[in-house]
Amino acid sequence: MGNSESRGVTHAQASAFLLREDEYLILAHASPDGDTIGATYALCLGLRALGKRAYVSCSDPIPERYSHLVLPEIPAFEPRVIVSADIADTQLLGTANSVYADNVALCIDHHPSNTLYAKQVLLVPTASSTCEIVAELLKELGVEISTEIADCIYTGMATDTGCFRYSNTSAKTLRLAADMIERGAHAAAINKRLFETVSRQRLAVEMLALQTLEFYLDARVALIVISRDMRAKTGAAETDMEGFASLPVRVEGVLVGVVIREKEGGVYKLSVRTNNGVNASAICAHFGGGGHVAAAGCKITGTLAEVKTAIINAAEKAL
Amino acid sequence: MGNSESRGVTHAQASAFLLREDEYLILAHASPDGDTIGATYALCLGLRALGKRAYVSCSDPIPERYSHLVLPEIPAFEPRVIVSADIADTQLLGTANSVYADNVALCIDHHPSNTLYAKQVLLVPTASSTCEIVAELLKELGVEISTEIADCIYTGMATDTGCFRYSNTSAKTLRLAADMIERGAHAAAINKRLFETVSRQRLAVEMLALQTLEFYLDARVALIVISRDMRAKTGAAETDMEGFASLPVRVEGVLVGVVIREKEGGVYKLSVRTNNGVNASAICAHFGGGGHVAAAGCKITGTLAEVKTAIINAAEKAL
Repeated sequence: MGNSESRGVTHAQASAFLLREDEYLILAHASPDGDTIGATYALCLGLRALGKRAYVSCSDPIPERYSHLVLPEIPAFEPRVIVSADIADTQLLGTANSVYADNVALCIDHHPSNTLYAKQVLLVPTASSTCEIVAELLKELGVEISTEIADCIYTGMATDTGCFRYSNTSAKTLRLAADMIERGAHAAAINKRLFETVSRQRLAVEMLALQTLEFYLDARVALIVISRDMRAKTGAAETDMEGFASLPVRVEGVLVGVVIREKEGGVYKLSVRTNNGVNASAICAHFGGGGHVAAAGCKITGTLAEVKTAIINAAEKAL
Repeated sequence: MGNSESRGVTHAQASAFLLREDEYLILAHASPDGDTIGATYALCLGLRALGKRAYVSCSDPIPERYSHLVLPEIPAFEPRVIVSADIADTQLLGTANSVYADNVALCIDHHPSNTLYAKQVLLVPTASSTCEIVAELLKELGVEISTEIADCIYTGMATDTGCFRYSNTSAKTLRLAADMIERGAHAAAINKRLFETVSRQRLAVEMLALQTLEFYLDARVALIVISRDMRAKTGAAETDMEGFASLPVRVEGVLVGVVIREKEGGVYKLSVRTNNGVNASAICAHFGGGGHVAAAGCKITGTLAEVKTAIINAAEKAL
């Protein structure tokens, strides 16, 4: 691991670097979200518009909800330069792409936790999303923002800001989103797809999960349990399970919200979300987990009653 | 009712009119939402900043969730001019303010269904919110946007665009929201308050309501019923009932989503939301109601079974 000064590059330096070569492989992180998909696709389309050959690789399949972003197939080639986007750590490359861990020439990212694994890092921790950084980079590269690129950038920005709801949304973020709408981004359709449409299975499993909502420690801690049985009963797919983590912490007065998901063999996966600066990462550290101040995760093995007691005790210490 | 040509005024004309007098009563609509509160408060603060006397009146109390918007009390006076904001029809003045129905000098609104009841109407149907119109009007009036005004405008814009999610969000909308953030609007805190925090009562009543979810016409129509009993059982306040209207239409494949709320004396209040351009306003017009293409409302009297049959038949005609 180098230090940020030796590896950090500016938009102009990253742009000069990208103009130099002609063949690029761009890596998205495993379990891909809208930001890594939008950023890699936008960069790829931009480099192609400049006459270069480029393609995107992800260790996992692209979820159906991002199928509005399309990257035309091109004939196979052996890329000379590897770029990663929105990947803070080589562990996030996933199984298939882990072979590239030591050979990333340029990493474009907004995560403050970036481990600086790449030879050059365009890291902008104040950016709401990696797509916000890529948009500026494309401008620097002289790429005209097409409707397709605008859709990619908008998708990543909307994903990482909760559709401009979270505190990472700056005036600059909103103006860039406005630019993307003017370049033809299908904002309303994308928002509907990402933030409104729910499957019947999702609604059904949410109803079952909400029935398990319990409050502890003067209702400062709220728990929801999602059993394997609930998924079986409702036919909910893994993609129907997204976004549950933030449910209990949304309840008025709750400081620590926990979603306990039953996995196989007595293992429970816990998602902890907090308000008012309570340290979710510290709570999860008791069980070998971690994350950010407001959002963290861990795994605990035991009976459901044991798991509940353990997490409530850990939460009490953090309050 | 006159026609729009004789009553319609431009921002400049409305501004000139507002500069002429010195004492204003500004009316918000009954069951006030973020847009009517934000628009009336912002205009009131703006007129006061110009040295005029102004106050806001609403037939109903301002809900707790908008308590971040504050309008300092001033000594009572008999206002000379009455202005309304975000009020499409005099019926929406509510009981207490209905006395002003024939004396509104200027109405500022964005609803295409505005009945042109006022002597002058600043109507901008392309604006996402009345707050968007008021922001431009304040600029025309030469009012400096204070942090307090920015909070008001931002609140109204966020309310009516579902935090910039809906199709009424234009590039212009996002740029104006960016301006408000630069003027000090507490966007993240407002968003959390409006779009994330839910009361325990709200969650409880939502669970009961979701259990009534029914699908008709090949699952293109979805209905939810909220009985008076549900509110009584859960202790949900009126403010806990907001936002239900959009629930059924979010389900994948649904084109017409209806929330049927039981009122007193066999009266049901219906909120109709649609996807893919199905005309909600036309559906509600069958029952003397109206609204926008994607969002409309009406009242039907009868048994619950009769109400369901009536709205399903009306929806079928619109599909």
